[in-house]
This record gives sequence, C-alpha cells and structure tokens, in this order.
Amino acid sequence: MPLVRIALRSGKSAAYRRAIADGIHRAMVETLAVPEQDRFQVISEHEPDGLVYDPSYLGIPRDDDVVLVQITLSAGRKPTQKREFMARAAALLSDKPGLEPRNLFINLVEVAWENWSFGEGRSQYTE
Amino acid sequence: MPLVRIALRSGKSAAYRRAIADGIHRAMVETLAVPEQDRFQVISEHEPDGLVYDPSYLGIPRDDDVVLVQITLSAGRKPTQKREFMARAAALLSDKPGLEPRNLFINLVEVAWENWSFGEGRSQYTE
Amino acid sequence: MPLVRIALRSGKSAAYRRAIADGIHRAMVETLAVPEQDRFQVISEHEPDGLVYDPSYLGIPRDDDVVLVQITLSAGRKPTQKREFMARAAALLSDKPGLEPRNLFINLVEVAWENWSFGEGRSQYTE
Repeated sequence: MPLVRIALRSGKSAAYRRAIADGIHRAMVETLAVPEQDRFQVISEHEPDGLVYDPSYLGIPRDDDVVLVQITLSAGRKPTQKREFMARAAALLSDKPGLEPRNLFINLVEVAWENWSFGEGRSQYTE
Repeated sequence: MPLVRIALRSGKSAAYRRAIADGIHRAMVETLAVPEQDRFQVISEHEPDGLVYDPSYLGIPRDDDVVLVQITLSAGRKPTQKREFMARAAALLSDKPGLEPRNLFINLVEVAWENWSFGEGRSQYTE
Repeated sequence: MPLVRIALRSGKSAAYRRAIADGIHRAMVETLAVPEQDRFQVISEHEPDGLVYDPSYLGIPRDDDVVLVQITLSAGRKPTQKREFMARAAALLSDKPGLEPRNLFINLVEVAWENWSFGEGRSQYTE
C-alpha cells in the first residue's frame, strides 16, 4: 500500500540507492504493520539545482547527502507508531548504507483505505 | 483538478505513454465527473533501479510493464465511484495500449476543493 | 515543513528554475507562516510528452511555459490564507522570472503535523 517516493542528489551508486529503499521498506514493515510484499517505490536522482534543502532548519545540519522521502499510506497509524517508524528508518539507514540521520527527511501523506488498486482494476482493500 | 503522476519503466514509445495518459484521463471523465478539459499530468520514466515493485503482492503477478499512477483530486467521490474508476481505467488501458490489468497500480490522494489554483493566482473552485 | 514539487518543461535556464523555486518559497513565508528556513523543494524538468496540460481549462490560456506546483504542508491554513498564497505566488513569479500568472498551476496537499521528520529520526513538530 505505501507508495514511496525517494529523492536524492545524483552521484550515488545503485547499491547505495537500493540500500536506502530497502531500509525505508524494512522500517515500515517493522513499525507500521506494512506487509513484507507491499512494496512500491520510485527513486529519483537530481542535479544540485533540482533538489533544494535548507542546511540548518530546526538546528539540524544537512548536506548534499540529504534524502527526501515521501510516503503515501492508508490512514490509521497512531502518532506513536509514526515516531517509531521515523526512528527506525534513521537507525536502519545509518547502519546501511551509512546515511547520517541528520540527512533523512520524511513526510507521510495519509489516504483512505479505498484509495488503492493493486492491479486487475479492483480496490482490494475494500473487498 | 486532478493532478496525475504516472511512473513507468523506460523503454516504451511516446505513443505508448500517451495512450496510458489518455486512458487514465478518459476513465476519470467517465466515472469521476472530471471535466474533459481538466487534464494535468506528469509522466516519468525510470530505469530498473528507480522503480521498485513487488512481483506478487496480493497474489497479482506484476512485471516490468508495471505502471504506478498517483492521482491527487478533490474529496467527495464515493467509494463506489472510485471502484468504477479503477475498473474503467484497467479496461481502457487493456484495450489501448494493451497494458495488462495486473500491471496497473493506482493510488488516489484527496484534498480540499480550495486547494487548487488553475492560473491567474486565483482559487477558482471557491469563487 | 512544506515539501514542494515543481514540474516544468525542459529548456529553461537554471537561474529561471531557481527564481520559480525562490518565489514559491517567498510566497509561503509571507502568507502561510512558513519559517524562512523551512525549505525543501524538488524541481523536475520534462520533455513535451512528459508534461501534459490543457491549454484552456476554465478559460485560462496556458502554453509550454506552464509550471505545475504541488505543495505538501501541515493542515490548518484557512481558505483565505490559501487564496492569499496563490495570489502572492503568481505576483512574485510574474515579477521574477517573468512567468505569466496564467501559466502557474498550484495544488496543496494537507497532512497532520506529526507526519514530518526533519532529520535525526525524530518527529520534531510533536515534541
């Protein structure tokens, strides 16, 4: 269900980007009750002028390793779960590929459960 | 009003991509009461490592022809309408360009009617 | 907090694109109480077949200079504020880089305040 968009600067290896995507998915499985197979992700690379970030908003130093993650998912997770997800994602990405937690930006967008079709023209979550 | 984002793997022709965009728009016009001229779409192509999908979630086999469609639209459609849209989109894309329904992933994001400006710095839907 | 996605046709200079991004941010600071440093933007360029728009929906003439702006932000702005933002963005971009207001398309997506992490694995707005 989650549709994940990951944006980062160009120049990282495919393995690095894959590790980012893997870690985000793993954190969702562990903290948000997302099924293991429920994985759909778009990863985009950007030149410097295509990805703008503030280098110190809220006192957190960011650099060109910054990763912007936007996740659309069904409503219903509690604030506590969301915080657990954010912490777990930062920990997993810090471990692999070694992304510093200060460079991980996350935004969640919540939608109704009926707003998904996983194929065959059906709305599987409302059947 | 709808803002449509279509993501697919690189390698298809411009005509193929246009047919995908045409079919999604046609299905919205027919089932969601979207005006014929209300069409704004962004189509992005991705290398294999930039578009990740599960090949069997919910028992639906997907392959590299998978198309991820995310549609932001104003709130108010009933679940029944949404289901009709999903079914119609799958039928139209199956007919042209021949996309198998198992490869069509759809997500809807709903927003308030006041959240749109179609130009001139105005919020046309709340005037 | 806002995560801004700006899509436009390829062919403009980096300075032109930067001016678009600057103006959108400036308008948010002035009308939506967004902090000056709260700036995170993704700008994407598209070939003609990757960015589809209607040339006259709602009687507004658009051309290939069209810019589609989608802004995800926390809920709570009043409709009046949103209208002020749309008007201010159009005015600023008309001034620099000279984008005609008829070519500025804006969509807002609202989310809960707890749905953001600005780094360090924390949900800063709910602490």
